[in-house]
Amino acid sequence: MPFVSSSSSIERWLLHRILRVTGYPPLRLAMKDGVSVSSPGAAPVGTLVFQDRAALLNLVLHPEIGFGDGYSDGKIEVEGDLVALLEAAYRCWPGRSAEGWTTRLKSDWVERFKVNSARRSRSNVHHHYDLKTEFYERWLDNQLVYTCAYFPTPSITLEEAQTAKMDHVCRKLQLQPGETVVEAGCGWGALALHMAKHYGVRVKAFNLSHEQIVYARQQARQQGLDDQVEFIEDDYRNITGQFDVFASIGMLEHVGIRQYDALGKVIQRTIGKRGRGLLHFIGRNFPAPLSPWIRSRIFPGAYAPTLREAMQVLEPWDFTACDVENLRLHYAKTLDHWLARFERSASQISAMFDARFVRAWRLYLAGSLVAFRVGTLQLFQVTFAGRECTRIPWTRAHLYALAQSQEQGPKWMHAMS
Amino acid sequence: MPFVSSSSSIERWLLHRILRVTGYPPLRLAMKDGVSVSSPGAAPVGTLVFQDRAALLNLVLHPEIGFGDGYSDGKIEVEGDLVALLEAAYRCWPGRSAEGWTTRLKSDWVERFKVNSARRSRSNVHHHYDLKTEFYERWLDNQLVYTCAYFPTPSITLEEAQTAKMDHVCRKLQLQPGETVVEAGCGWGALALHMAKHYGVRVKAFNLSHEQIVYARQQARQQGLDDQVEFIEDDYRNITGQFDVFASIGMLEHVGIRQYDALGKVIQRTIGKRGRGLLHFIGRNFPAPLSPWIRSRIFPGAYAPTLREAMQVLEPWDFTACDVENLRLHYAKTLDHWLARFERSASQISAMFDARFVRAWRLYLAGSLVAFRVGTLQLFQVTFAGRECTRIPWTRAHLYALAQSQEQGPKWMHAMS
Repeated sequence: MPFVSSSSSIERWLLHRILRVTGYPPLRLAMKDGVSVSSPGAAPVGTLVFQDRAALLNLVLHPEIGFGDGYSDGKIEVEGDLVALLEAAYRCWPGRSAEGWTTRLKSDWVERFKVNSARRSRSNVHHHYDLKTEFYERWLDNQLVYTCAYFPTPSITLEEAQTAKMDHVCRKLQLQPGETVVEAGCGWGALALHMAKHYGVRVKAFNLSHEQIVYARQQARQQGLDDQVEFIEDDYRNITGQFDVFASIGMLEHVGIRQYDALGKVIQRTIGKRGRGLLHFIGRNFPAPLSPWIRSRIFPGAYAPTLREAMQVLEPWDFTACDVENLRLHYAKTLDHWLARFERSASQISAMFDARFVRAWRLYLAGSLVAFRVGTLQLFQVTFAGRECTRIPWTRAHLYALAQSQEQGPKWMHAMS
Repeated sequence: MPFVSSSSSIERWLLHRILRVTGYPPLRLAMKDGVSVSSPGAAPVGTLVFQDRAALLNLVLHPEIGFGDGYSDGKIEVEGDLVALLEAAYRCWPGRSAEGWTTRLKSDWVERFKVNSARRSRSNVHHHYDLKTEFYERWLDNQLVYTCAYFPTPSITLEEAQTAKMDHVCRKLQLQPGETVVEAGCGWGALALHMAKHYGVRVKAFNLSHEQIVYARQQARQQGLDDQVEFIEDDYRNITGQFDVFASIGMLEHVGIRQYDALGKVIQRTIGKRGRGLLHFIGRNFPAPLSPWIRSRIFPGAYAPTLREAMQVLEPWDFTACDVENLRLHYAKTLDHWLARFERSASQISAMFDARFVRAWRLYLAGSLVAFRVGTLQLFQVTFAGRECTRIPWTRAHLYALAQSQEQGPKWMHAMS
């Protein structure tokens, strides 16, 4: 009995330590059928229950991997709402400011030595994007847009918001019928098809995911757009040809800082001094690697740059940053929709893969939602132009002409219909 | 006679060399009563006439200083439209892209060693901003706003456009009655007074120019706003106190890169994690010093950063870049107005100073106009917020609600009146 008591003391000490290191979030930590501790102050928003001591030790030794794997394996269970619990934890996480130079240096160092070669990029992409399309169909919108949506008003549906996002991008780019667009990282092809269908442009769209390219080509044929849109299974570094417009939605975070110069060179080569373009990517306020769990289990090779770092793509080539919009709250909202749809399909997804997969993806979606909600992650849309580009809008009012009419109508209406 | 002929040959050779080095702009270069040369191709848009050989040699040896001083001294005369001539020259100027590393390194090096101490800043400011207010009254708008205006439509007056700019800034900052604002670099006080009068906030506004502060205080008294607005003749580094909002319009370009960290620290200290702010500044696509003539004769200590460089102010302090707008075409339009008003008052200004002063300022205004028109210079408005700021707008549509109603009305209407 004294042995049990002493062992409980160690557990209690470790649980306390976790609360202290994480800034005393309003949570309860408990061993299954054993000791439990809570932060002082506000009532706990939820409880983390460790199923055994190994799960507890893993979390102490490797906090992020330990939590991610423990949760995925069912060794750490959450009582209460996962999103609320993660939000409470993120908000208390000790802040970071100018003194965190070591983090920055470490982050820089890690990134310097990690080169996403064409081969490694292919493997990274395969890891995430070559999962069965039926899986993504369970929880994305009906056009399979796997990037931040745009909600002119928060109450519209995910389908409407993804269409609104594509129109927002097309209007920022001021697409004109007959122009040519190159898209780097095109997912299942929704934006390329939307541009062709509603703005009358010709699009060449690149993607490394075989599964996605096959789906996109099928969509192009079905929609009778295969003479306007060409889907190419290849690396962005192999883009050739001349275009009026460059667009990349949700690719920069997979490129890696070491390749920003190569990406800039590709953009310069394809649109030259007269072209214009848009980069849409997950970013940060200050330089830091993504969570080790996300990097090892969900997105190998990913890095979310600060706006300063992202400008390294454009600055060497004399591109002008015309407009930068931060849509982080829209990504939180998007993830809210994705997570709700994911939960509704959880049992079918579990049958497709297994329960561990469901828990891992639930944590990834919930964690991302919270990161955008509290500002750990940002979403930047950067519109840029070459020095001799003549299609520079006088103001940004044209982007909001529709938002006005929408306030008068009952529903978000499509720009071009 | 052979001597004269040989001397003409040298002049002709030098004039040709100038055309070659500057990328063969469509110009004619001529010695007064002597030889002249033109670029091949398009008809010349104007002629530079060198009054003597010294002026020609100065230009060859120190192109920018030589041209600026030569023009100011009347040793280089322009036949034709000065703006059109400068624009032709700027557009042909050999472009710069990734290979220009030496320029960048040199620029970095120059900036590293140039520290704008509080004392040097005071002297720099005195050089330009302590000129008589009557001089600026001759060609600025009636509120003396000496920064880029905002033209919701190009046809409005300068007065309307400066008011529109101030409203644009206030709406980006989402000012609420009763809030507190600190302004770093307040000019003659127009924005601080506008914020207090139309948005019901309390403002503390800093400026190193004695002449401007005296004028601003007088305006505050006359408008009955001296209980809401306090004008302080001091350096931005001496700002103390807590505020909801930080605003700085047209100061960053005088701060110098070495002080970005100090400026960031001031912002962090005054608005903390819950505050928000706006930086409005002249920038560039790629790092380069301003023209040596501008730096030595007009704006000592000035440096126009790229967006990447400017983010060094905000990034170390975990500030979020919410919105970046590039208003370079609006600055070209603003300068167009200033230059036209300046020309209308040229004889009075010449009487106030002398003909040399008029020519130097004409060149400064015309050269700046062209630099913004062709994209050598940019104008960035960066809206930012602390991590715990709750006043993040859902979209940017509120900035354009007025632009809509304006299209229906005959004239730009004031937001709050």
